[in-house]
Amino acid sequence: MGKVFMLAPDSFKESMTAKEVCEAMEAGIKRAIPDATCIHVPMADGGEGTVQSLVDATGGVLVPMEVTGPLGIPVQAHYGILGDGKTAVIEMASASGIHYVTKETRNPLITTTLGTGELMRACIEKGITDIILGIGGSATNDAGTGMAKALGYRFLDQTGHELQLGGGFLGDLASIDTSNVMPQLREVNITIASDVTNPLCGPRGASVVFGPQKGATAEMVQRLDANLLHFGHIVEEQLGIAVADVPGAGGAGGLGAGLMAFTNSRMRKGVDIVITYTGLEQKMKGVDYCFTGEGGIDFQTKFGKTPYGVAQVAKRVNEQIKVIALAGYVGKDVESLYEQGFDAIFGIAPGAADLDTLLAKGKENVARTAESVARLLMQAR
Amino acid sequence: MGKVFMLAPDSFKESMTAKEVCEAMEAGIKRAIPDATCIHVPMADGGEGTVQSLVDATGGVLVPMEVTGPLGIPVQAHYGILGDGKTAVIEMASASGIHYVTKETRNPLITTTLGTGELMRACIEKGITDIILGIGGSATNDAGTGMAKALGYRFLDQTGHELQLGGGFLGDLASIDTSNVMPQLREVNITIASDVTNPLCGPRGASVVFGPQKGATAEMVQRLDANLLHFGHIVEEQLGIAVADVPGAGGAGGLGAGLMAFTNSRMRKGVDIVITYTGLEQKMKGVDYCFTGEGGIDFQTKFGKTPYGVAQVAKRVNEQIKVIALAGYVGKDVESLYEQGFDAIFGIAPGAADLDTLLAKGKENVARTAESVARLLMQAR
Repeated sequence: MGKVFMLAPDSFKESMTAKEVCEAMEAGIKRAIPDATCIHVPMADGGEGTVQSLVDATGGVLVPMEVTGPLGIPVQAHYGILGDGKTAVIEMASASGIHYVTKETRNPLITTTLGTGELMRACIEKGITDIILGIGGSATNDAGTGMAKALGYRFLDQTGHELQLGGGFLGDLASIDTSNVMPQLREVNITIASDVTNPLCGPRGASVVFGPQKGATAEMVQRLDANLLHFGHIVEEQLGIAVADVPGAGGAGGLGAGLMAFTNSRMRKGVDIVITYTGLEQKMKGVDYCFTGEGGIDFQTKFGKTPYGVAQVAKRVNEQIKVIALAGYVGKDVESLYEQGFDAIFGIAPGAADLDTLLAKGKENVARTAESVARLLMQAR
Repeated sequence: MGKVFMLAPDSFKESMTAKEVCEAMEAGIKRAIPDATCIHVPMADGGEGTVQSLVDATGGVLVPMEVTGPLGIPVQAHYGILGDGKTAVIEMASASGIHYVTKETRNPLITTTLGTGELMRACIEKGITDIILGIGGSATNDAGTGMAKALGYRFLDQTGHELQLGGGFLGDLASIDTSNVMPQLREVNITIASDVTNPLCGPRGASVVFGPQKGATAEMVQRLDANLLHFGHIVEEQLGIAVADVPGAGGAGGLGAGLMAFTNSRMRKGVDIVITYTGLEQKMKGVDYCFTGEGGIDFQTKFGKTPYGVAQVAKRVNEQIKVIALAGYVGKDVESLYEQGFDAIFGIAPGAADLDTLLAKGKENVARTAESVARLLMQAR
């Protein structure tokens, strides 16, 4: 009887979407075993590619939308509506990502999450009740005040004037006006995909840990950190919510804290969210072999990366399911993954080659490697 | 019960000897299956590494020896004595190889196989009765006259003076003096490892096909080709042996022809010789899995390269033996090898990397890949 293959890779960054990896894996497997059944579940871990993978995995749609970029200039962003029609998936980086600023224009005093809020607002106005929000890759340090503004919150100084956008001006925050917040917001559940556990402020806070990579100088870091501390106090005072010390509050320049303060949200590991929404565990039943993979795999994969999550699901469903990971780059101490649900790990590179060549040839290299693995597996019947 | 693994790779050129590849394969396999039995048979195909592999495979010894290099300057060469104590193995390139000349000093008019003959003479004087002679990688175009001179032949011009060394002077050959040939030579059997089928002269001959890569200009090619034709006539006239049109006579600048004319020799494919002398077929009995490999594997591997020969032996002994090939570089159309006895083919590169890095990390990359393959195979028990 034909064997059943689960194909549940992450994207191979800059080379293939997760769906394309699935297709390449199937092409190789079918060359070896024409009657194989291949189940495609394109995966992600809450970071880049999560919208695409969840849309692909659930038969949803990708919706493009122009929003305010991190520097106030319009950018072309997008969000996804899952196949269930009631869940949206958003990557904050699509609207407010670090890739929209250059080394010269990096300035976390003024960058804003406004565009992320615009995406959320658009979804909510469509009647969406569940939003999955991946918060990696931000250019911002504004505690999500830009995001909240898009949803109707107003951040005022002592004279009652609205603050400028950006974390650099939060030191002047005196009051938060909630009178114009969109009423549907209270009915919306937001699931934050984040693996970050940093608090809002202090030595492990957003500004100190992540500010420099967003262009903050030492002086800026000090100012931003003080501003976030002040923001936390005002939020606690006026909204009665203490967010500053909650693990994850410091994610995405304090967007974590802002989401906790201004929305109904909870934080989950990205890969767990994707596992839930793709129905991976249910689909894993009856599977004989599980292929996963990612652009790079090393010992850190076991700290919550997609292939690790997939391997856990496979072994939980059936200890006998063989888990094979393919990777563009096989890094340090991958052997440690053999105790973590992985049965075999193969690099797909055909030999000496520069990165650009490998990125361009990803599909054929995945297919070739999957074919040889499938041939070995089948030999063993 | 523990499974039995045959490890029969070629060397990975510039990275590992075949024996080192065996060791790396075993290291990886044993990490997966501590009770695996690993049989090491370092292989070769008659080219570079053949002496080392046959010495390693038979428990023989490597003997260094200074000989006359292709340009007449002494070089440090070596030969091997196999474990049987009566068979020597020589790579002509060790004495007369193209790597001893530079772009500037390449001159096939004067390069000589004398050093190769000196190695043969030394073996014969030790009582060796069987010589395996790999003839790849030569710098010469002298029809093996230098080799023959070392064994006692004298090549004279019309005035009875000995010719200068090198194919450029064979046009003056008038007679061959055999009176001083070492008497033991007639008792020695020489097996020429060569995959070349070219005749001595003409458009497919040694000078036209291989002369240019040895530095011959168009004029030199013409002169060398005419000289080899003349040489063939003299040999036929005086020794009664027609060698010019025998397939393989054109190998190694006509060394093939010289060996046919001056010694008891026969030609065989390199990998077949190695299979015979390593006893690979006998050792393959009872094996469950056969690992082979080479620095590079592609569709051309099926035209007589080592992994192909190994796969044929494995399948001939037992169709159920799974043949897995590892390669530093997996090239064009390897899928075509699946019809030629190969069950799976894996590249060992961990990702984007330049050749030097891969050459330096060969052992760990072989071990890592062998480990994952072994884990897959064992899962299937």
